Amino acid sequence: MRKKNYKQVENKPAVLVDGTPVENVYVRWLIDKEHDGANNFAMRHFEIKPKTEVPLHSHPQDHEIYILSGEGKFYNDSGMEEIVENGDVIYISPYEKHGITNIGKTDFIFLCLIPYLKE
Amino acid sequence: MRKKNYKQVENKPAVLVDGTPVENVYVRWLIDKEHDGANNFAMRHFEIKPKTEVPLHSHPQDHEIYILSGEGKFYNDSGMEEIVENGDVIYISPYEKHGITNIGKTDFIFLCLIPYLKE
Repeated sequence: MRKKNYKQVENKPAVLVDGTPVENVYVRWLIDKEHDGANNFAMRHFEIKPKTEVPLHSHPQDHEIYILSGEGKFYNDSGMEEIVENGDVIYISPYEKHGITNIGKTDFIFLCLIPYLKE
Repeated sequence: MRKKNYKQVENKPAVLVDGTPVENVYVRWLIDKEHDGANNFAMRHFEIKPKTEVPLHSHPQDHEIYILSGEGKFYNDSGMEEIVENGDVIYISPYEKHGITNIGKTDFIFLCLIPYLKE
């Protein structure tokens, strides 16, 4: 059993899966394989600054997302858009293209969990 | 991409992995295989009423937990205890025995994610 507070975990500049940095987006890997031995999936805490967008991207891993604060928009490349706030949940399927925009005046903050895919 | 609010998901009486009901504990399966096609892991929202305890139990799945509100205690069978509140994170390893007590005056509410183990 391991306990942390999210503030104790380093808040790093985020990068897309291909390594592209995304300015004004920060990520804390709250629970992961490296630090916790969590081999099945990882819990990440994302902070997107106002007027910031994470561009459309995709990968084999799905995402399970829980919104903590702020106001954001999730969208895909088929014209789907979802406006979200605290208590909303988003599921993004494997390989589904997705983008995220902070549409509020405060930081847009959410948990985003991602599997460690097995061979 | 699927969006829900946690309140839209049915709040069911919780049971332990062996099917034992736990009184005054409620669970919402926010993202799961059955409703969302999430095959890697599930996101559950737990609500433990005041003066309620989830007894020690264990299973092959690990848990990744994020505390949303209230005050609780996580413990194992080796004398470890962790008092937690909003913003705290708990990782419980596969097969580690764990119990949970609401030690506050309000509902103790957290997200608890669990993998769908592959063969």
